Amino acid sequence: MNIAAESGAFADMMRLLEDLGRIGREPGGGVTRLLYSPSWQEAQRLLAGRMADAGLEVRYDRVGNLYGRLPGTRPDLPVVLTGSHVDTVRAGGDYDGAGGIAAGIAALSYLKRRFGMPVRTLEVVSFCEEEGSRFPLTYWGSGSIGGRYRIGDGTGIYDAEGVSLDEAMKAAGFGHGSQPDCCRRDIGDYVELHIEQGVVLEAAGRRIGVVESIVGQRRYGIAVTGNSNHAGTTPMSYRADALAGAADMIVRVEEMAKQAGNGVVATVGRIEALPNTPNVIPGEVRFSLDIRHTESWMLNEFSESALETFQRIAAARKLLVKADCWLKTEPVPMDGTLAGRIERLCMEAGLPYLRMVSGAGHDAQMMAAVSRAAMLFVPSRGGISHAKEEYTEPAYLAEGAAVLAACLHELAYTTGVDG
Amino acid sequence: MNIAAESGAFADMMRLLEDLGRIGREPGGGVTRLLYSPSWQEAQRLLAGRMADAGLEVRYDRVGNLYGRLPGTRPDLPVVLTGSHVDTVRAGGDYDGAGGIAAGIAALSYLKRRFGMPVRTLEVVSFCEEEGSRFPLTYWGSGSIGGRYRIGDGTGIYDAEGVSLDEAMKAAGFGHGSQPDCCRRDIGDYVELHIEQGVVLEAAGRRIGVVESIVGQRRYGIAVTGNSNHAGTTPMSYRADALAGAADMIVRVEEMAKQAGNGVVATVGRIEALPNTPNVIPGEVRFSLDIRHTESWMLNEFSESALETFQRIAAARKLLVKADCWLKTEPVPMDGTLAGRIERLCMEAGLPYLRMVSGAGHDAQMMAAVSRAAMLFVPSRGGISHAKEEYTEPAYLAEGAAVLAACLHELAYTTGVDG
Repeated sequence: MNIAAESGAFADMMRLLEDLGRIGREPGGGVTRLLYSPSWQEAQRLLAGRMADAGLEVRYDRVGNLYGRLPGTRPDLPVVLTGSHVDTVRAGGDYDGAGGIAAGIAALSYLKRRFGMPVRTLEVVSFCEEEGSRFPLTYWGSGSIGGRYRIGDGTGIYDAEGVSLDEAMKAAGFGHGSQPDCCRRDIGDYVELHIEQGVVLEAAGRRIGVVESIVGQRRYGIAVTGNSNHAGTTPMSYRADALAGAADMIVRVEEMAKQAGNGVVATVGRIEALPNTPNVIPGEVRFSLDIRHTESWMLNEFSESALETFQRIAAARKLLVKADCWLKTEPVPMDGTLAGRIERLCMEAGLPYLRMVSGAGHDAQMMAAVSRAAMLFVPSRGGISHAKEEYTEPAYLAEGAAVLAACLHELAYTTGVDG
Repeated sequence: MNIAAESGAFADMMRLLEDLGRIGREPGGGVTRLLYSPSWQEAQRLLAGRMADAGLEVRYDRVGNLYGRLPGTRPDLPVVLTGSHVDTVRAGGDYDGAGGIAAGIAALSYLKRRFGMPVRTLEVVSFCEEEGSRFPLTYWGSGSIGGRYRIGDGTGIYDAEGVSLDEAMKAAGFGHGSQPDCCRRDIGDYVELHIEQGVVLEAAGRRIGVVESIVGQRRYGIAVTGNSNHAGTTPMSYRADALAGAADMIVRVEEMAKQAGNGVVATVGRIEALPNTPNVIPGEVRFSLDIRHTESWMLNEFSESALETFQRIAAARKLLVKADCWLKTEPVPMDGTLAGRIERLCMEAGLPYLRMVSGAGHDAQMMAAVSRAAMLFVPSRGGISHAKEEYTEPAYLAEGAAVLAACLHELAYTTGVDG
């Protein structure tokens, strides 16, 4: 198919995004659709209707992942799946997750109209949860498909109101034994379109990001202990100032990441000082450290080196420092053959693209456990995401959907399972 | 009088401190006696009783400062005043303020017993307020005496519950026109004993601090603005990280104060990052900056230089920085003749002393507007204050009270107004 010629066919996906954007709308702007909430249920109902309108067979699985299916003529061949997640962060944007579902529905609708029934079964999925905004857990949808979670795992997980994930799931009509099992072993290829949520494509003037890898993460809680003393009566030389020490650590870890120059990112996003009063030297400071890279060895080496540096700074300042690693995820490479296919399609269409890494986690990393997996990014204006200002040009979204459709076409309308 | 021989006479002031420490006792430890509160009223009643027991004439002024008076044989000569404040911070210690009142009562009681009536009238005062813990205002007691405040100034000042200072004062039985005016012009000398609230005396192995000057202060609110972005999808080179920038500023201002080496202290006690989430680059950080020194020119020069440095750091990091100076007090020198007298008394008694500055504000700086003023410090264990762990050795307190009594004796039992 000729992507440039066809991308006009995907312009109507904007209407679906607009309709979705009205569900869970906050008075101050932004949308909130937390897992299993009324707005979440309304969004899934809307999507189920649009999938049916597109001539897809609609079904939910046991945790509430919503599928639209275009059956292939060769049901023995592995399924080709696309999609993204329907939930949002609190007061999030209109595109994160929703963009990939809308593009998937638009692509399947287009392919059915243009090429009829596929050889391999084509499906689009609206994953029930990815953000971790209601419950302290992420990828509940794709993780249940990929085998990371089992249905009972929602029992001991509670939201801020004390409702368990399991209770919320059942209240929304899911979690019953009669509903289809989540876990799937029949998927051959998973291709997800997502907004970049960063500024790299925009800054480079590219329209499509071909994701090579999703970064691994290390997250630490760092606690620095000194002595809390009177700001007036304690000479500089007698101080063990936990905040000055923490500041020293923050400046140095930023410097280390800049000097590494290999794409590693290190962020201190959260800080808390005690007692946090202008006229008292802070005796304790806690801060977060988030480190991301596409190579496990680099993550380990950088983390170790950062923590050693913190220890050295603490020792020189008569402070104590403790580090607690509370999140450790390994990098997930995307399938090289699928990425190569997306790249070729961009080249053929004359679309400026960029091979890049994803610094954010995505459902594709869960799907990679049971399928070949690939992602393509479309630009985010100003790199802004998880906010009401999140925006992607309709033309860029349509182009992305056209590339997605072309990729799904090549995969599903031939018998050859490539690679 | 022979201080070393007499200091045993002041050991009973510990009983008064213990009794005071039971008033406003917190379940978790520490004492809370906020201005005009029931525990404050109870403390003043206890002190009034002990003043009367010591044979002093007891009276309150219009704002609730409590005086005990030992009339002199020459009422035409200026009064000699000692004392400190009865209020505390929340969950504060047993010695801050209370120590100076107890020492004052003990000294007057001793002098009356030992030497009879003085030539110059001797008074001890329990100032109603110094800490600023209930209302956003400090030195309400001594400031009303020294002329900084007038009785009506409490009208527009509210506590956290929305009660005005004026209402609270009237509810406690003060603020009425029939009560004695606060402002005094009849005081010749004011001598205050206070705990050091710092670690200098302990570290130097000295028992008495002779205060030369009370520092001036500049307090700033600093706001650093950058761009809030995704911690994973924003490469290091695209960041405008407000927290990394603030950390840089905090490290540098500490360095500047250390390098100045002239006693200037600079403290960042409070910090707040937005949105304060581990996986988001902070877009805004606010922090406090507290600068203290005994010279106005140094305060101005250091402040200017710090703010210039902040601007340079911000410019290099593509951040904006704004500084708001919300507190500016000038240094207050103590009277040199009085300080010299205290120093001589320490030498004569063989007490190891230290000439020093006060890094904290005290009532003495208000009294210096209407009287010669002096302060002597006794050591604080570990420099800890404003906490339940606040402690001063009874022997050190007794020595301090003996020096205070000796000083008051020299001033009040002769007709000569020295200096």
